[in-house]
Amino acid sequence: MAVKTRSFDYTIDGKTFEAFLAAPDGAPKPGILICHAWAGRSPFENDKAEALAKLGFTGVAIDLFGKGVLGQSKEENQELIKPFVENRPMLQDRLKANIEMVKEQAEVDGAKIAAIGFCFGGLCALDVARSNADAAGVVSFHGLLNAPGNTPDEIKPKVLALHGWDDPMATPDDVKAFGEEMTNAKADWQLHAYGGTMHAFTNPQANDPDFGTVYDGDADRRSWQAMQNFLAELF
Amino acid sequence: MAVKTRSFDYTIDGKTFEAFLAAPDGAPKPGILICHAWAGRSPFENDKAEALAKLGFTGVAIDLFGKGVLGQSKEENQELIKPFVENRPMLQDRLKANIEMVKEQAEVDGAKIAAIGFCFGGLCALDVARSNADAAGVVSFHGLLNAPGNTPDEIKPKVLALHGWDDPMATPDDVKAFGEEMTNAKADWQLHAYGGTMHAFTNPQANDPDFGTVYDGDADRRSWQAMQNFLAELF
Repeated sequence: MAVKTRSFDYTIDGKTFEAFLAAPDGAPKPGILICHAWAGRSPFENDKAEALAKLGFTGVAIDLFGKGVLGQSKEENQELIKPFVENRPMLQDRLKANIEMVKEQAEVDGAKIAAIGFCFGGLCALDVARSNADAAGVVSFHGLLNAPGNTPDEIKPKVLALHGWDDPMATPDDVKAFGEEMTNAKADWQLHAYGGTMHAFTNPQANDPDFGTVYDGDADRRSWQAMQNFLAELF
Repeated sequence: MAVKTRSFDYTIDGKTFEAFLAAPDGAPKPGILICHAWAGRSPFENDKAEALAKLGFTGVAIDLFGKGVLGQSKEENQELIKPFVENRPMLQDRLKANIEMVKEQAEVDGAKIAAIGFCFGGLCALDVARSNADAAGVVSFHGLLNAPGNTPDEIKPKVLALHGWDDPMATPDDVKAFGEEMTNAKADWQLHAYGGTMHAFTNPQANDPDFGTVYDGDADRRSWQAMQNFLAELF
């Protein structure tokens, strides 16, 4: 499938952001937001947009930090996500503004929106659901699972969490708490746990077992397949 | 795909059993054992054999109780599984004998074996893995998750457990314990949890929320898809 890509600036609350969009030729397709990991939007997320386009979707790697912002160390990354982790309603508002931006793109069928994300971006994808933003479903890849504190009585978007069982940032007890949160919110939710798998399992650069981040080819492939099945169900 | 079916008797330790086999036309195919639920081998399991044959596998609905034995009430079913639940090594031996039986069937490529199972049969499928029987992988549909007490240091078959999060017979704490068991055994394991889903979610007849058994069309479809992805990875 022929795929076209472009980068473009957009503005939220007076601040400039830069997204990367990849779309198949032809009529507008369902739009999939890709929420970036804690470093910011990088070639990793852009590649996912292209991979989604090859599957027949319009992938948009969104930007939550601001144009050109890309953390260079764990410490910088931690600082970058801190305001969002500490103020989840603010994060949720920014995600909603990004969804509106994506819906306006010519290559996107604005009635068909989903969000995926990786690590911190997984948390973002889950918060798209938790804030009942205008999306049919969300997929978290090794996302942080902790509740935002404002989970509604009823979550409408479908939820798929793809999770490494040995992830030190989301323990089995966190999975239990997540299950309770989603169940109480009457969500259509799934969690796929991959054994022997740590955080960041989709990132071929991840190789820091002491920190808990290690690439896993099986979990990478299985989770991408699970996402495809999920998107096929949505659209 | 044209599918042929046949029922046939077989003997283990002097006792007669009856299996139901469904196979596509042509060369021998990977053999998938279907382990029955607590009532015994029924049309439900036979239908799964046919469904597997339509996917290109030779499905064999095996018999663990003896020819013609089919429980008619919860109490009868409970009595039927009791000897196996109380003596897991005996269950594991019987499963191994069934695998040998399946490998000998003309429609089966004996080098390619997997096992699936439902409810009690899910426990059986997991015990195929736990006993390192001659199978490439196993899939449990709403299986009981409790460890047999003889889990080896290393489980070789790949393991996929498809699980209703609200299953009262396998609670979130049981999932945690299962994760520990599988992790300690260095298994290649996955567990897919379906929210808002009880035990017996694949059985269209299940409709007893007080007992914890309720059919769920979404989980039924998603779990069957997950099994297909898993089998595609194995063979």
